[in-house]
Amino acid sequence: MTNPIDIHFRTEVREEDRENIRSILVSTGFFYDIEIPVAVELAEEHLQSGPGCGYFFIFAEVGGKTIAYACYGPIPGTVGSYDLYWIATHDSCRGQGIGSRLIEAVHEAIVAAGGRLVIAETSTLDKYRPTRHFYERTGYLAEARIDDFYRKGDGKVFYVKRF
Amino acid sequence: MTNPIDIHFRTEVREEDRENIRSILVSTGFFYDIEIPVAVELAEEHLQSGPGCGYFFIFAEVGGKTIAYACYGPIPGTVGSYDLYWIATHDSCRGQGIGSRLIEAVHEAIVAAGGRLVIAETSTLDKYRPTRHFYERTGYLAEARIDDFYRKGDGKVFYVKRF
Repeated sequence: MTNPIDIHFRTEVREEDRENIRSILVSTGFFYDIEIPVAVELAEEHLQSGPGCGYFFIFAEVGGKTIAYACYGPIPGTVGSYDLYWIATHDSCRGQGIGSRLIEAVHEAIVAAGGRLVIAETSTLDKYRPTRHFYERTGYLAEARIDDFYRKGDGKVFYVKRF
Repeated sequence: MTNPIDIHFRTEVREEDRENIRSILVSTGFFYDIEIPVAVELAEEHLQSGPGCGYFFIFAEVGGKTIAYACYGPIPGTVGSYDLYWIATHDSCRGQGIGSRLIEAVHEAIVAAGGRLVIAETSTLDKYRPTRHFYERTGYLAEARIDDFYRKGDGKVFYVKRF
């Protein structure tokens, strides 16, 4: 067995992360074209307003390149509940356990901030089976579901991890 | 049995609705102080940007006074799914079926716009039992639930009405 690869996590958001986020998300083939600018906007809000905007980031760097990232934040109106808005690894780096280590870093940050639970929403479509397995492997339970949420035949599952 | 009271519904948002919304919500005793400005902001967004902001309103007027209102809108990233963000009747007018007629008007507007379903989120606390019964009476099913969502002991229920 080889040693785990050397990953550097950083929470600071930089100008170039707009392009990093776009390129990571596009590479996965999992997101609609209209979703990607929404993800980039969250980073822009953080660049403009700082952590006060409510969106927090963890970027994973390998060999100086940003190859995965997660965006999460406290849910307004709740005490200690967090949303995991985005998590993605560049397609060229899949299968190396980077996503699992990144999501662990997110969980540690949420616990350190006093979080009690985090919710990841995903689709019931077959296409997202790897996503659902990823959450199941990393300690999430599919606690709630709304059928036909995104469109007819495409429901939403709420994966919840409790600390 | 008396005749149903004469209600006028309007969808136009007016300057004075900021105060109407505030006064209706405060009268119910159901909302936290920090929630009320959030509700008023949605009306302000509509006043500034028009229906393009994604928040639609129906106000119920009786004898020229605005005594109930609902705010709803299409959920971004979905085809035909709507959120019912707010619905409330002034405490002085409760028990006259105004809320039921108002929510029917909301459902008609959503169906007319091509909506397939609408979701109303509420709390699992005893305090919100009347709210939950209201949704059950008006055709909603409690399809999903996340325990301890708002805080420990205070979960969220997703009531869904499908058309």
